Amino acid sequence: MKATAKAHTNIALIKYWGKRNEQLILPTNNSLSLTLDGFYTETTVHFRSDLAQDIFYLNDTVVTGEAYNRVTHFLNLVREQFGHKKLYADVRSVNAVPTAAGFASSASGFAALASASVKALGADVENDELSRLTRRGSGSACRSIYGGFVEWEKGTKEDGSDSFAVPIAPADHWDVRVAAAVLNPTEKKVSSRAGMKRTVDTSLFYQGWLDGIPQDLADIKAGIADRDFEKVGSIAEANCLRMHATTLGANPPFTYWNYLTMQVMETVRELREQGIPAYFTIDAGPNVKVLYLPENEARVEHALRELSGVNDVILSRAGGPVTYQN
Amino acid sequence: MKATAKAHTNIALIKYWGKRNEQLILPTNNSLSLTLDGFYTETTVHFRSDLAQDIFYLNDTVVTGEAYNRVTHFLNLVREQFGHKKLYADVRSVNAVPTAAGFASSASGFAALASASVKALGADVENDELSRLTRRGSGSACRSIYGGFVEWEKGTKEDGSDSFAVPIAPADHWDVRVAAAVLNPTEKKVSSRAGMKRTVDTSLFYQGWLDGIPQDLADIKAGIADRDFEKVGSIAEANCLRMHATTLGANPPFTYWNYLTMQVMETVRELREQGIPAYFTIDAGPNVKVLYLPENEARVEHALRELSGVNDVILSRAGGPVTYQN
Repeated sequence: MKATAKAHTNIALIKYWGKRNEQLILPTNNSLSLTLDGFYTETTVHFRSDLAQDIFYLNDTVVTGEAYNRVTHFLNLVREQFGHKKLYADVRSVNAVPTAAGFASSASGFAALASASVKALGADVENDELSRLTRRGSGSACRSIYGGFVEWEKGTKEDGSDSFAVPIAPADHWDVRVAAAVLNPTEKKVSSRAGMKRTVDTSLFYQGWLDGIPQDLADIKAGIADRDFEKVGSIAEANCLRMHATTLGANPPFTYWNYLTMQVMETVRELREQGIPAYFTIDAGPNVKVLYLPENEARVEHALRELSGVNDVILSRAGGPVTYQN
Repeated sequence: MKATAKAHTNIALIKYWGKRNEQLILPTNNSLSLTLDGFYTETTVHFRSDLAQDIFYLNDTVVTGEAYNRVTHFLNLVREQFGHKKLYADVRSVNAVPTAAGFASSASGFAALASASVKALGADVENDELSRLTRRGSGSACRSIYGGFVEWEKGTKEDGSDSFAVPIAPADHWDVRVAAAVLNPTEKKVSSRAGMKRTVDTSLFYQGWLDGIPQDLADIKAGIADRDFEKVGSIAEANCLRMHATTLGANPPFTYWNYLTMQVMETVRELREQGIPAYFTIDAGPNVKVLYLPENEARVEHALRELSGVNDVILSRAGGPVTYQN
């Protein structure tokens, strides 16, 4: 009744931006990500008959409040699905995802939690089913079941049974790297969840966002297959800009960017003008991630570290799928 | 055969962003502006039978090239309309619109040129007709015929006969002011004309832009009538953000903002958090204009001058209509 799983976070190149069902976490559009080796969560789940409730440790500290509620809510789904309604769990997670880097630790977190829970209960599930279950904890986590390039198919069914991730190309298909520029801390004024909802509900640009997805997906998958870095990078960057443009059309409008975000974007454009292929992508926060090829690692890292508002630069390669330990 | 006219530039609160006819300069949406007292062009036009071609002096310097071509092209329209096809003009303009401030000197320039030309030919035209003619020189110039708050009605006719500006409220209706933050110079990579065209032709968000205009216009006109600064300011700011969002959805995407632009926007938001009503608007360039009320002038100017990337801050009140001198 005990298992340990390790899952990596992922960075979306085609963004997940909008839910069609908040309860089941069903997206309005397909998304596509790269799993990252450098950032992961390792979680041990131990279902024990002597517990009166779930207990959750993150980095050796007991977690309560909203984060605990999300974990126990997810464990309830697992217990329900696999017929162990009265068995509580001792959950111990170690996060190697620096919060400041602006990566979604919920992606690696729920992928590891789902994988370890299912394994601890001795259930034998296919990856499709595991991804679908993981989705219920955190949408983008469903992509972290796989390594490399991964697509989350939004599905069309009401019950979400056809909404899960599928692998596009493994990590060893192509050595694309990501530099996370960690900016001076600023208060995050609109959470990603709230921002997504406000955008779907009010943005004049939301339909335009959806209209662009099929072409982006077709093009980026062709680019990945051909290892065409300029194609993949420019599509990812344009997709990110469109995602952020939708927030400017919301009511009231808002942005996740600050002037440091803009400074990093300008630096990436300057790198390109100097002949270094590099492209940025930004999630629902101010931090910027830069895609580059191995031969340009030193140049990219140096350019980012030179910016006075950049506190740290964290590099990562493509990462693999969920793994298990005993 | 000689007349002098003075026209002020204007700042759009609801942006002119897209043409339905490039040749006749017919817009895709109504726009609304405030004429500004601080920035103007004074132009003397002298039609003389002894000239073999037009001659154009700007600030005492003879102008050639593209700027000269636009002036002479416009004078051809005037000559054609008023039946003086063989009479060339000596045109002398003085611009009190600092180019660095990012105000459209073409707005005051063509309003003054149109007014002086028509007057010099002794033609007696209504303001509607003068505005319609001015539009052919530069779209936003058609609003500078009037003072205060002005709406440019896009019209629906193919020949543009119903596309001209109308006055909404004169300058003395309401003492709203504008601070122009002049940023460290950066190269303008995409001209406003080219950016507008690329956006209309390729942006996934262009329809969303158009969809938002009728509500913005109705609300801002109600706000102007009620002298409701928060309403007028927040609509102008949201409209500006949507205009700029459309460029992020173009193919390829682009932006007129740089990190200094973002810094000024953040400063304006901070002023509001401190209880100072101030709102920004940005045209097709990096500079930011800030709307404020007279009682907050010192606070707004100080906040902008404190930013290290701001070279200068130029203040203006609402301005009046075109005037003539002998």
